[in-house]
Amino acid sequence: MTARTPRIEIEYCTQCRWLLRAAWLAQELLTTFRDDLGEVALVPGTGGIFEVRLDDETLWSRKERGAFPELPEMKRMVRDQIAPDRSLGHTDRHK
Amino acid sequence: MTARTPRIEIEYCTQCRWLLRAAWLAQELLTTFRDDLGEVALVPGTGGIFEVRLDDETLWSRKERGAFPELPEMKRMVRDQIAPDRSLGHTDRHK
Repeated sequence: MTARTPRIEIEYCTQCRWLLRAAWLAQELLTTFRDDLGEVALVPGTGGIFEVRLDDETLWSRKERGAFPELPEMKRMVRDQIAPDRSLGHTDRHK
Repeated sequence: MTARTPRIEIEYCTQCRWLLRAAWLAQELLTTFRDDLGEVALVPGTGGIFEVRLDDETLWSRKERGAFPELPEMKRMVRDQIAPDRSLGHTDRHK
């Protein structure tokens, strides 16, 4: 299977019941970057994983960072990669 | 980018604002087939599209069928392909 790019992948731990959190993040990113994203994939995982990847790059790993991503930070990271000229409105003013 | 299989792809029309519907279906399928699915991808589209694909096969096309998929039917179609021995509980009793 070939995926569409830019592709965001959210791998979440099913044992931790993080599907809702992952699906919420997916919808936020698809709303903000509606015309810029090829797809957002939800990937069931295990062992406490919560990782967000953009194509081959890991943007966020809960294990490395010790926390879930904050939404404004996540959006800025995605924006910087796929739509660097785009303003995120009030999100940008808290940089 | 290589996707994980079995892969379900839900392509939805952004102009029609069907993201919430697509995300709801994604979560239902990921809940029911937690250990059987490689990923569920949400794919923004246009022009009234609402299509559900399993790997290379189209399971549902709103244009062809003239309606959105019913959840029990959708789950049976997915189950028959990826976990044929699995009972879907009360969903199966309405066959």
